[in-house]
Amino acid sequence: VAVKHALLGLLLERRGYGYDLMQRLEARLGPAWQLNPSTVYAALDQLEEEELIVGRQPDEEESKASTRRRVRRVVYEVTEPGKVAFEAWVARPSAQQEPIRGELQLKVAAAREEDVEALLDAIDHAELLTRMLWEECREREAAEGAATAARPAAGLAHTAAVLRLEGELRWLETARETLLGRRPRPNGRGRLPVRQFGM
Amino acid sequence: VAVKHALLGLLLERRGYGYDLMQRLEARLGPAWQLNPSTVYAALDQLEEEELIVGRQPDEEESKASTRRRVRRVVYEVTEPGKVAFEAWVARPSAQQEPIRGELQLKVAAAREEDVEALLDAIDHAELLTRMLWEECREREAAEGAATAARPAAGLAHTAAVLRLEGELRWLETARETLLGRRPRPNGRGRLPVRQFGM
Repeated sequence: VAVKHALLGLLLERRGYGYDLMQRLEARLGPAWQLNPSTVYAALDQLEEEELIVGRQPDEEESKASTRRRVRRVVYEVTEPGKVAFEAWVARPSAQQEPIRGELQLKVAAAREEDVEALLDAIDHAELLTRMLWEECREREAAEGAATAARPAAGLAHTAAVLRLEGELRWLETARETLLGRRPRPNGRGRLPVRQFGM
Repeated sequence: VAVKHALLGLLLERRGYGYDLMQRLEARLGPAWQLNPSTVYAALDQLEEEELIVGRQPDEEESKASTRRRVRRVVYEVTEPGKVAFEAWVARPSAQQEPIRGELQLKVAAAREEDVEALLDAIDHAELLTRMLWEECREREAAEGAATAARPAAGLAHTAAVLRLEGELRWLETARETLLGRRPRPNGRGRLPVRQFGM
């Protein structure tokens, strides 16, 4: 999933330089996206090459602070073709659906009876990580919604991650119950209460 | 997500040739995974190179049928190191979580007030595709569960896709309601009844 066009949208709100854009995009997408900063810089280069944005050295007055630090940041602005490209991208139906792939799915698909114990451990581990990320995304969702209520879809990108992770947590529970149903564990490990995710 | 180790699991159940393995893996993962056959063949080559599997020409008796068609398929079997590698893989906690990325999330993150109409159309489109895939995955889940009740986790890989897609559908509804709440459409389009996903 290329972040290129989303950067146009951020720049239409206000111009900015690379690091600023990277931070703004990360704030909106949250930790679940695992945004790689280098993809942001590569996308800016590509947008500039395609003349959808222009990079300018800020004038003397503006760049005083950064000049003092011997840094002159390139500030990007959207061109008219860039604005057209952004709006076309928002309106364009997605070419295809994202594949749904996860390592635990593969393990489940390939597991034999004798793998059930190891699988239950893998499920416990995944649940811990997923729950931590879910909590983080919930916080980001609330913070983003509050901070930027001016944007129509403020917080909704975080909500996507939250709901995806809730689906994942429900799957982990289902998987555990299914496997335990077949092979009850004497110590009852894994029999956690069913949780509510505030839905 | 590399399918390599999952192939070892399938081969531990019974030996097989490339196309057979590709079909068996696809049957378990379902359409949401978007399994690329070439990754299966590449993984088999790699497994053979690492001596985790061995490929054999079937002997005369066995290969009579295929010889008649002038095809001699290589049949793979797992080696002892392959069995060890498979069991270690099942037990090994996943190194990291999959990123959660979707183009619609990006659109939502970058949208301005004036993009709301286009965004609502994109949501409608995505919902249609997601619903179709969800239905297909539900069918596969039921079929797989019934056909292979002998496996401990039969159907669970499909369940992962089903629950992921249900999370996606809930997000699409949430996104639509949020955007419509801000900008009611005169014709009421998009105000579909809230659906139940059999949860």
